[in-house]
Amino acid sequence: MTGDVVGLLREALADRVDIDPAHLDAMRADKSGHAAAGSPIALVHAASIDDVQTTMRIASATGTPVVVRGAGTGLAGGANAGAGEIVLSVRGMDRILEVRADDLLAVVEPGILNADLNRALAGHGLWWAPDPASREISTVGGNIATGAGGLLCAKYGVVRDPVLGVDLVLADGRLLHLGHRSVKGVTGLDLTSLVIGSEGTLGVVVGATLELRRLVPGQARTLTASFPDVRAAATAAAAVTASGVQPAIMELMDASCLRAVHRLLELPASDGTAAQLTIQTDGPAASAEAESIAATLTAAGGTVRLARDEAEAELLWRIRRSMHPAMETLGTTLIEDVSVPRSALPAMFDEIARIERAFDLVIPTVCHAGDGNLHPNFVFEGDEVPEVIWQAADELFRAALRLGGTLTGEHGVGVLKRRWLVDELGEDQWQLQRQIARVFDPQGILNPGKVFAP
Amino acid sequence: MTGDVVGLLREALADRVDIDPAHLDAMRADKSGHAAAGSPIALVHAASIDDVQTTMRIASATGTPVVVRGAGTGLAGGANAGAGEIVLSVRGMDRILEVRADDLLAVVEPGILNADLNRALAGHGLWWAPDPASREISTVGGNIATGAGGLLCAKYGVVRDPVLGVDLVLADGRLLHLGHRSVKGVTGLDLTSLVIGSEGTLGVVVGATLELRRLVPGQARTLTASFPDVRAAATAAAAVTASGVQPAIMELMDASCLRAVHRLLELPASDGTAAQLTIQTDGPAASAEAESIAATLTAAGGTVRLARDEAEAELLWRIRRSMHPAMETLGTTLIEDVSVPRSALPAMFDEIARIERAFDLVIPTVCHAGDGNLHPNFVFEGDEVPEVIWQAADELFRAALRLGGTLTGEHGVGVLKRRWLVDELGEDQWQLQRQIARVFDPQGILNPGKVFAP
Repeated sequence: MTGDVVGLLREALADRVDIDPAHLDAMRADKSGHAAAGSPIALVHAASIDDVQTTMRIASATGTPVVVRGAGTGLAGGANAGAGEIVLSVRGMDRILEVRADDLLAVVEPGILNADLNRALAGHGLWWAPDPASREISTVGGNIATGAGGLLCAKYGVVRDPVLGVDLVLADGRLLHLGHRSVKGVTGLDLTSLVIGSEGTLGVVVGATLELRRLVPGQARTLTASFPDVRAAATAAAAVTASGVQPAIMELMDASCLRAVHRLLELPASDGTAAQLTIQTDGPAASAEAESIAATLTAAGGTVRLARDEAEAELLWRIRRSMHPAMETLGTTLIEDVSVPRSALPAMFDEIARIERAFDLVIPTVCHAGDGNLHPNFVFEGDEVPEVIWQAADELFRAALRLGGTLTGEHGVGVLKRRWLVDELGEDQWQLQRQIARVFDPQGILNPGKVFAP
Repeated sequence: MTGDVVGLLREALADRVDIDPAHLDAMRADKSGHAAAGSPIALVHAASIDDVQTTMRIASATGTPVVVRGAGTGLAGGANAGAGEIVLSVRGMDRILEVRADDLLAVVEPGILNADLNRALAGHGLWWAPDPASREISTVGGNIATGAGGLLCAKYGVVRDPVLGVDLVLADGRLLHLGHRSVKGVTGLDLTSLVIGSEGTLGVVVGATLELRRLVPGQARTLTASFPDVRAAATAAAAVTASGVQPAIMELMDASCLRAVHRLLELPASDGTAAQLTIQTDGPAASAEAESIAATLTAAGGTVRLARDEAEAELLWRIRRSMHPAMETLGTTLIEDVSVPRSALPAMFDEIARIERAFDLVIPTVCHAGDGNLHPNFVFEGDEVPEVIWQAADELFRAALRLGGTLTGEHGVGVLKRRWLVDELGEDQWQLQRQIARVFDPQGILNPGKVFAP
């Protein structure tokens, strides 16, 4: 049967069907650290919508599961492919089909990297706001499939906001054009939004109409504030939000993050500092806002440093950007992604401290403090997440839900969080969501075992 | 059977079940001018989520159709109720349950009027951005059910953007909590967005968690520009968007609109002016932006007037706000709602002029020029839309679709546009949307005959 499927694919798609064992093996994992059992049967390098439709028709006719993949930078295992599955890569479909400065929109293929798109748009004085930390290596299609977030979300929104339309190939190979090109449009159900964050379970995103912004004028300002403990930093971040000044970015790193980064970058030890906020303001009022935020942070007990120039700002941001490389020096990392209302940040850090004590773990945590999205890092040895870490993660998820939060702010459910999905949605909503997915994909061949699998 | 249903409702809900014939008759129509055939069997004034669940359980058990209703201000017939139907009014559920300035969110019941909510929020220095022209008389639940727009959308977004979560009672009476309270959240499918704009076909919105903004600081500025023809005004509006300055509001009125309003307000005749833009800028840079826009409009051939103070600004806005009352002086009005990419505005006005000539009609048109949403008004005598007007509207819809636009920017499909729905969605997507609605409502008792009915 497997041989038949590969044969059908090769007959239709020739050398765009890749069965090199090393290539197939690489498809088992994304950046989550988790890998699927077994290797997929074929990797299709789609070059066109037609290729995607052909692949889906063959998959549908043969009942073969399909895992759609962009750059494979996901953090929840959502694009991991295993035994018996076809990997359908849209990474090669990376053209910008249209940029309209007058309508503030772009039409793109899904495989373009977020940063490549934004470099091209900058030439028109434009940008697409979603800025996941992975933007240099992640695709726009992947950003849409996961409903990605980023650092700028409190001020500039999440992926759901600036996507006007999506072209979607269904499991049976039919092509749908969802959404519209106009700013407003309420014709029928909003299937564009439904596809955003659906993690490859509803169809294959083969194109997107994106709403753009004009580049923000003026010089951004950067400041940091150090605090003697993480709760104080979280309280200060909440005070910034409550003050009414909207930073573009507000990041919080705790003591163990700072220690690891300072070691990696060979900076002086950060011993006196248990937590640090790094903040950027932008737009015409950037300087006034930075001063105002500095005053709020000082009043909240922080030691503030306002970067005098871009070089100094760059140095401060380098610390934040070195977070993931620094974690990798400690061991294998399970990066979690809970999100809570901003006022609950101090309480969520209390819960993390409690879980650290209860399980005798250190959980380095970085946090998009402007929007309440935390990334606690569970560090361990080897390839398999130890059971104690799953138990600690379970406590973490339940704490976030108790505080009015959510399991995942921006990474998605994938395989890593599927067993907690029902805890957040409730049994009725979980069943309803499964049934909706079945309308798009009656045979259940799109990304089986992800998101909804118990 | 009808008697049984009313009996069951009265047994469970006592005097919250209204069968006064005059009250029932009033439920046949919204503000679209269209009325359902026959009168509904009962009007339930729900006072609680429990009342809504009880009503839906009885409706489900007896297979009785239910039309959910807020303030009845819709413009597409979506909340019109006819023979054999229960009207489920949530207008009485109008409490603000929570306002959190620190988290920039509010939790409300669906029946609160948009303007009442915003008056209450203003005391906290906050607002909920959606501003349909009906905001003094329309409910937040209705705004969500229709995916309402408004005047501020190009700068501050549509209803889809600032709704974090929705509590939904399903056709069978079960209560689901969709969405989240955090800024970010991608757990499972985005059913909150799916419910927004679903026009009562998926469930009953019984609560909403809204994302708020801080009141915009500074004094807004208002200017108008007059043009010798409507195409010049549309071209000038597109030039403002293309210039990169973002007005808060940019409205266009054509010659026949202006004539009717000037007559109503007993202002001097506007004979020399074939079209007028009315524009508001806000925020710290309001004055600089108003000057910049004035220069763009002057260069585009406009005669610009910049209001010196609030009193003068109020006078200019009074002309725009008198649009609907002025139309009512001309006859019965069918208000259309096409939306196109902003660069297509001049071409869309050409199409309207062509349709006026082809059908020997005058079609007074007002337009949210900042976002490309046009409201052409078809004026006629009597209660029934004449066939010639449907033919002209058909031409209008097809022209908007050809220009990359949509049937409805903010009013919804309801009954008035259901026969064109498939033209925009295509047969495959239309069927898929119907099937999704059936997942929520297997018996098809929620707003039957609306949106998806052929």
